[in-house]
Amino acid sequence: MDLQKMVLAQAQQAKEASRILATLSSTDKDQALKKMAGALESGERQILAANQKDLEAGRQKHLSAAMIDRLSLTGGRIKDMAEGLRQIAGQPDPVGAVDRMWKRPNGLEIGLLRVPLGVIAIIYEARPNVTSDAAGLCLKAGNAVILRGGSEAIHSNTAIADIIGQALVDSGLPQESIQLIPLTDRQAVIELLTLDEYIDVVIPRGGEALIRVVVENSTIPVIKHFKGVCHTYVDEGADLTMAGRIVMNAKVQRPGVCNAMETLLVHQRIAEEFLPSMITQLQEAGVQIRGCPRTQALVSGLIPATEEDWLAEYLDLILAVRVVENLNQAIDHISRYGSMHSEAIITRDYSRAGEFLHKVDAAAVYVNASTRFTDGGAFGLGAEIGISTQKLHARGPMGAQDLTTTKYIIFGNGQIRE
Amino acid sequence: MDLQKMVLAQAQQAKEASRILATLSSTDKDQALKKMAGALESGERQILAANQKDLEAGRQKHLSAAMIDRLSLTGGRIKDMAEGLRQIAGQPDPVGAVDRMWKRPNGLEIGLLRVPLGVIAIIYEARPNVTSDAAGLCLKAGNAVILRGGSEAIHSNTAIADIIGQALVDSGLPQESIQLIPLTDRQAVIELLTLDEYIDVVIPRGGEALIRVVVENSTIPVIKHFKGVCHTYVDEGADLTMAGRIVMNAKVQRPGVCNAMETLLVHQRIAEEFLPSMITQLQEAGVQIRGCPRTQALVSGLIPATEEDWLAEYLDLILAVRVVENLNQAIDHISRYGSMHSEAIITRDYSRAGEFLHKVDAAAVYVNASTRFTDGGAFGLGAEIGISTQKLHARGPMGAQDLTTTKYIIFGNGQIRE
Repeated sequence: MDLQKMVLAQAQQAKEASRILATLSSTDKDQALKKMAGALESGERQILAANQKDLEAGRQKHLSAAMIDRLSLTGGRIKDMAEGLRQIAGQPDPVGAVDRMWKRPNGLEIGLLRVPLGVIAIIYEARPNVTSDAAGLCLKAGNAVILRGGSEAIHSNTAIADIIGQALVDSGLPQESIQLIPLTDRQAVIELLTLDEYIDVVIPRGGEALIRVVVENSTIPVIKHFKGVCHTYVDEGADLTMAGRIVMNAKVQRPGVCNAMETLLVHQRIAEEFLPSMITQLQEAGVQIRGCPRTQALVSGLIPATEEDWLAEYLDLILAVRVVENLNQAIDHISRYGSMHSEAIITRDYSRAGEFLHKVDAAAVYVNASTRFTDGGAFGLGAEIGISTQKLHARGPMGAQDLTTTKYIIFGNGQIRE
Repeated sequence: MDLQKMVLAQAQQAKEASRILATLSSTDKDQALKKMAGALESGERQILAANQKDLEAGRQKHLSAAMIDRLSLTGGRIKDMAEGLRQIAGQPDPVGAVDRMWKRPNGLEIGLLRVPLGVIAIIYEARPNVTSDAAGLCLKAGNAVILRGGSEAIHSNTAIADIIGQALVDSGLPQESIQLIPLTDRQAVIELLTLDEYIDVVIPRGGEALIRVVVENSTIPVIKHFKGVCHTYVDEGADLTMAGRIVMNAKVQRPGVCNAMETLLVHQRIAEEFLPSMITQLQEAGVQIRGCPRTQALVSGLIPATEEDWLAEYLDLILAVRVVENLNQAIDHISRYGSMHSEAIITRDYSRAGEFLHKVDAAAVYVNASTRFTDGGAFGLGAEIGISTQKLHARGPMGAQDLTTTKYIIFGNGQIRE
């Protein structure tokens, strides 16, 4: 029960802090962000020492090389975290803008004012840089934040949170504006998820198991940041040189991220011309291909694709390939197996481009470009807290503005309802 | 388990229907809405007969007069439902609009396209007119809808849904676009709330018990339509004539709705001048007053207000009254007891008006006007599905646009990520 009390106390303090944050000036917030950036840089030695502890524990637990890589901090990565905070400080303040304002026939003036959400809980896995990125973006939008990182990164996260917290105090902001849950116990998350009186939104970032735990236990509204099973569909009559360049980019440039392509769909009329050389090129780049029967008939020696492959988010140099009869079958495949993240069509055809754009239900739908562009920076939105794969509130890359809500403000001079 | 299968089948059919609805033209949707309106009018006798059954059962169950009133349909009320659908048909189509579009330095053109949410479940209490209003607004925004009304209105709701369903078929639309759960068993709701694979959002409209059941059992995102514990704060130096007119309107004009005032807060410096005559005027209009000790000291014979009164949504001719020391105490009271619905300040002071607007955390904050204006029609948004009291996705009156989401559409000519 101590755990329950501790999490409750953190949530209550966050709510208190959020009241102060909501009315801060942009200058105050930006100065605090810059102080946090400087503190991370001066605290490099402390952060790296803590990170070493996590890495040693991780190696003893035989974490995968990819996990160890995500967990690892260097002087360069700490500098990147600090730069990230400075960039957030340089973005416009989303709070206080009036999105629209109009006048009613009775003289009432009605406007929509952007205000912070309040208290945001972020539950994430083993990347320590998220601790600083998420804290910065929440502060920019005037929210208090409660962070719960993966147990593998507990020492790194604690060191980062301590340093940021001291910078907040030095800036005259409440230390409770940014809090880390210092426990690795999963029960702490379960407790947190029922505190809807104090926490306004929960953002889980991670795999299926984490998302399920949050969705099933939370009485707080959730914004899911789930996997990306992204497709590229190469249409009949596509510019095959362009298609080849985009396919290579979408699969190979950075395979471990959620907007990388996991399945290639190819129209049957161009499969024979396109696939053999495409597959050779991918294989030369180290990509393992898993093909449908028609793909296997065109290129020998491939691993057969199973139902699991169509559903897989490999995050690795592996690609499932399917030959489809037409655009409709491609759209059906995406609708059945996709994760509503990022989907692309490569085509020269006007009406099929339009049909794909309108019928494919995903956060981002591309014509003739790589799915790798789905992020806040590439879209021109600034820093992002992640990529929402749900439809409510925010869909796709979530920037600082998506961490706000609106309230109606109404200016009258005595109006009453007739 | 038959119940489980039935609800699952309804959700799956709704998902299928939603794919068709998403690509319908505005003309097709508006024609269907007008046909639904005509069908309600021609089906008046059938609806009234079904309503009689509900009313008889309600009287046997000794429902309150207010409940019986909300349950009752007349020729006039059916005409209003039909007119409501025709008004929705006349509103602009929110689907297909591109909210913004911009070009990136690499030539990518990125836009935000408005698309339907998909499948919406609405869980409501004993008002049969919601069946038609909600169905119409969901259809306008291209969504399939699953309706679950209160058990007291089951015959009326079934008759209305049957008539609307036939009109859909006559218009060439899938009958499963609008479905009513024909069971009064609460277990049907519980089953529905776990079908996050098929249902995109759940909107509960009703009292605390209903909202709790939904929030605690739902794995689907929820938009709460909860109670309105609305305050009017009369500031020191306010125009007391204006204040009196607004207070009367906010309490008396229609006490049974969520945007009516439930608590009056009065600055101590004007309490003696304002309250005695205000309370007399309210009492003459049939309002029962429950006062804090300082209010009781000014007007004798009042019922003392308890902690429960500050939290109460009376929906009736009852008003809690409290004398406060200053603006801060008024804001603290609202923050502690309010339901974040609609709050008003009556003042002549520029800076206190601004402070109230910014510090009070509610869906709608008023200066010098009655809280009774919080609804889609009065705000100029058209028909509404209800008033959201949460911060995520939609806050305040929810119109057809709030029943949509966006997707990023990206037009390229071969761009790849460097």
